[in-house]
Amino acid sequence: MGETPGESLSSIERPFEEAETHFGFQVLATSGLARRGEIVTPRGVIRTPAFMPVGTVATVKALYPEQVKEAGADILLGNTYHLMLRPTAERVARLGGLHKFMRWDGPILTDSGGFQVMSLSKIRKITEEGVQFQSHLDGSRHMLSPERSIEIQCLLGSDIQMQFDECIELPAERKDVERAMELSLRWAERSKRAFDAQVAAGGATPGQALFGIVQGGVDPELRRRSAEALVAMDFPGYSIGGLAVGEGHEAMIATLGQTVEHLPAHKPRYLMGVGTPLDLIESVRLGVDMFDCVMPTRNGRHGYAFTWNGVLNIKNAKHADDMQPIDAQSRCPAARDNSRAYVHHLIRSGEFLGAMILSWINTAFYQQLMDEMRAAIAEDRFASWAEETKARVVRKDPA
Amino acid sequence: MGETPGESLSSIERPFEEAETHFGFQVLATSGLARRGEIVTPRGVIRTPAFMPVGTVATVKALYPEQVKEAGADILLGNTYHLMLRPTAERVARLGGLHKFMRWDGPILTDSGGFQVMSLSKIRKITEEGVQFQSHLDGSRHMLSPERSIEIQCLLGSDIQMQFDECIELPAERKDVERAMELSLRWAERSKRAFDAQVAAGGATPGQALFGIVQGGVDPELRRRSAEALVAMDFPGYSIGGLAVGEGHEAMIATLGQTVEHLPAHKPRYLMGVGTPLDLIESVRLGVDMFDCVMPTRNGRHGYAFTWNGVLNIKNAKHADDMQPIDAQSRCPAARDNSRAYVHHLIRSGEFLGAMILSWINTAFYQQLMDEMRAAIAEDRFASWAEETKARVVRKDPA
Repeated sequence: MGETPGESLSSIERPFEEAETHFGFQVLATSGLARRGEIVTPRGVIRTPAFMPVGTVATVKALYPEQVKEAGADILLGNTYHLMLRPTAERVARLGGLHKFMRWDGPILTDSGGFQVMSLSKIRKITEEGVQFQSHLDGSRHMLSPERSIEIQCLLGSDIQMQFDECIELPAERKDVERAMELSLRWAERSKRAFDAQVAAGGATPGQALFGIVQGGVDPELRRRSAEALVAMDFPGYSIGGLAVGEGHEAMIATLGQTVEHLPAHKPRYLMGVGTPLDLIESVRLGVDMFDCVMPTRNGRHGYAFTWNGVLNIKNAKHADDMQPIDAQSRCPAARDNSRAYVHHLIRSGEFLGAMILSWINTAFYQQLMDEMRAAIAEDRFASWAEETKARVVRKDPA
Repeated sequence: MGETPGESLSSIERPFEEAETHFGFQVLATSGLARRGEIVTPRGVIRTPAFMPVGTVATVKALYPEQVKEAGADILLGNTYHLMLRPTAERVARLGGLHKFMRWDGPILTDSGGFQVMSLSKIRKITEEGVQFQSHLDGSRHMLSPERSIEIQCLLGSDIQMQFDECIELPAERKDVERAMELSLRWAERSKRAFDAQVAAGGATPGQALFGIVQGGVDPELRRRSAEALVAMDFPGYSIGGLAVGEGHEAMIATLGQTVEHLPAHKPRYLMGVGTPLDLIESVRLGVDMFDCVMPTRNGRHGYAFTWNGVLNIKNAKHADDMQPIDAQSRCPAARDNSRAYVHHLIRSGEFLGAMILSWINTAFYQQLMDEMRAAIAEDRFASWAEETKARVVRKDPA
């Protein structure tokens, strides 16, 4: 500790005086199964449970990076699939890496591209080797494999990387779920070898980390097999993939519980692509440490405001004459300063500022929610906090 | 001075300890025909020459009001035509006025709706009474007349209002230009009577002002007649309308010179809807005090950056790998902090942040340009400043 990790950080301001050179995680407090912890990286500490705003193409949509940081985010997410197509990983590397490119000096996590190549590219072919696909932007042909995915993530310079995996949509037949889960395990091994080779060759540093991804649909037995096989490979953290893909909240939470129990307590657990405030609360209750989701920004662009009194559909006519602030209890100035009537007008008029204000408010709401969860765990009152909070935040379009 | 003007300001923070209760203007310095002055209103002082960012539907597109203010804008513009249709003037009045609605506590100028009803509404009929038209939003039928325009502007609560006028596209036949100019003069009288009645009835205060609008195309004789007739009506300020509507830069500047010479030195002069940095410099040289234009924000959304070294077309492929800042000489942090490569990527990807960054940079550039003009006039070196600056800022896509 205290030693600088060398070249890779030289151009980035380091947020902590004493920065780690290696990736680490520790649990600081528990409340039931919920955990308050810290992931330590050379680019800064990530307080967990953590919510990562999604910066798909090197921008959290409609927000300045300063707003994302001030909202309380310690880390954000970038999407390998999008970035490999535009501006391309090679260009980002040439320009000094993703952090410098998008002016975010904290940690960045990247996905492997596996999920989005399935959901976005129109034409694709999955083989043992990887996925051949055509870009949704211009139809150009590309290949993603475990090796190429890791290469891209290292070119981007992300601090936490994901193994390449196959995520299938649910519902699906058990044999298809099993086949995808087993393929993902073989890809986990190849991803790990590729990442280790990058570290050995100087393409990554020991301060960066590669997570394995548990698959297996909503089948407890497949989830157990996936988790155990990944744990045997000894990743520094474990992601839970293949949820929030059509199975519903109840099945997701049930599967999550059956998955988390097979993951080691001393490694961070990341539930990918989730979710609503209710999803986050229920998942933290089961011991999940990290989340990402486009919901705060996407729903903001569509006129929804997450507030401490429920979700406002600001396009609703009843807000047209309402000079109340969006959310007087928010930590975000945009929620306290802007009236519902004004934001209603902006969203109805298709104005940038409407999306800017609601994306900001929602991003701040999610961070404030995580802050409250961390405090409740630290004080061992998570269960009562959760019951009280859930009743408030799930309301639809309150007065 | 020092007395509060009563109800109309009670809910707005007043930016100056000693605020005027009446509208006023004084010329502080001249350099050739160029003037450095101050318009004093109860909501604050407007340093002239002034550029007013356009907040069409109660938002300067893609900017937070704080950014507009910090960029140096003393006043902004709202569009009567847009606001009367959505959210409607009556709703804005019910909610406390345009300043409170859009969180802008400085002065606001509104146009009369005359120009935009011609350019935006599809079906319209001009009579002596006014203009009947159908909304471009939903086809609903509306009427704009001098009386209704002033009523709307008073409901919005704008500090500087415009007479209702007819602005015709150029080129046009002299008889049509003359007919529109004379109709606009009769509408000027009706606008003034309507405004005076509003003041008498408490719908406006003596701190608000109504400007007359000089019309007459590019015909010096028609411009002279229009100006003289308006001056005889003794408006507190004079707008120059009907330019930048297809006549070209040279004809505009020639007409401007022939118009300004008929306007009194002790009243502010506002050139409506203009223009490029070159237009502004040439117009200030002729003695114009106020401008508005959508160019900084619209061109920003379309990928153009105004810089002190010329206009960048950031979509150009040559910027894709250029980590230079957009403009190292800018006062705007977004111009200094963001690389050309990054903004190129954002604009090419259609990301909000690209429009946000370039609208901010351009708005700040225009304000910095006015600041430099004011300083050059104050120090009586406007001509040399203008020659030096024009050579730099008109460059197209410099390296």
